[in-house]
Amino acid sequence: MTQPGYLTRKEDHLVRLRRIEGQVRGLQRMIDEERYCVDVLTQVASVTKALQGVAMGLLDEHLRHCVADAVRTDEDADAKLSEALGAVERLLRT
Amino acid sequence: MTQPGYLTRKEDHLVRLRRIEGQVRGLQRMIDEERYCVDVLTQVASVTKALQGVAMGLLDEHLRHCVADAVRTDEDADAKLSEALGAVERLLRT
Amino acid sequence: MTQPGYLTRKEDHLVRLRRIEGQVRGLQRMIDEERYCVDVLTQVASVTKALQGVAMGLLDEHLRHCVADAVRTDEDADAKLSEALGAVERLLRT
Amino acid sequence: MTQPGYLTRKEDHLVRLRRIEGQVRGLQRMIDEERYCVDVLTQVASVTKALQGVAMGLLDEHLRHCVADAVRTDEDADAKLSEALGAVERLLRT
Repeated sequence: MTQPGYLTRKEDHLVRLRRIEGQVRGLQRMIDEERYCVDVLTQVASVTKALQGVAMGLLDEHLRHCVADAVRTDEDADAKLSEALGAVERLLRT
Repeated sequence: MTQPGYLTRKEDHLVRLRRIEGQVRGLQRMIDEERYCVDVLTQVASVTKALQGVAMGLLDEHLRHCVADAVRTDEDADAKLSEALGAVERLLRT
Repeated sequence: MTQPGYLTRKEDHLVRLRRIEGQVRGLQRMIDEERYCVDVLTQVASVTKALQGVAMGLLDEHLRHCVADAVRTDEDADAKLSEALGAVERLLRT
Repeated sequence: MTQPGYLTRKEDHLVRLRRIEGQVRGLQRMIDEERYCVDVLTQVASVTKALQGVAMGLLDEHLRHCVADAVRTDEDADAKLSEALGAVERLLRT
């Protein structure tokens, strides 16, 4: 079983996700302090953008490692490509 | 100064955001346990969708309260509408 | 029966849509001439952005006219707001 | 110089794009006939979704052909992957 491609940047992903967790807690504080709706919405858009950054980073490594390895060794290449395209489609649909 | 429109559903927003915070921590755990990239990506798409649900809920109340009040009293109606449209645009661009 | 809010900028919308029609024909030409896939994808993203511009323009006028009128006269205000929010949600989901 | 990967489904893409062109002309007719704003917005969302379908089809073939070939022959593999990821990012940002 191969290791996930993102291992090379594992710590980088964790740092980004901890920051996003902090931003989501910040959103709760904004709601709790009854901050202006539009400011909360701006902050929601910013957290969404940060999550998409994480997704792009994961996809980058997934294509460069898991998918590229499958193509090179010609093992499951088609299935891996379909799976990666499915992941892109789910990201696009949100 | 009027209160934010989302006060009527404040607890509902907080519940959703706490669940999203839990999902973001779940993402960290997935990365930490070196789970399969595509499964992590699927979960990122799901958190993004949950955040958009919060955004739609906030926008709903903002239009029904702050913006509708501004229109009814004809105070700042144009500015409030422009501001709300700006918020929609920022959500669309992510 | 009120007229659609976008009448004030009807010609502007038609100009944008004619340009988008030209861009879609340009995409057909690119495929026909077997242009490089990534260049076609870049152009698809640009047409999508142009369509979102049309959507934002229509939504702007819809909120400022149809929805604001409904709120002011208190006729169907809630239904109009729900309908507009549904339209925003459909745009977000694409 | 390799041929674009989408050649295998060239006619399929052209058929979809001609249908999208027809939908964009339909949008012009809706504006011209002063149809209800929300109905126009619903149709804009539908055209956007159709364009994303074309994008996903092109990306699918690009990854399976151009990018997979580059990986297999180890020629420009990294550059091709970066380029494809850039295309995904542009689609996500719209």
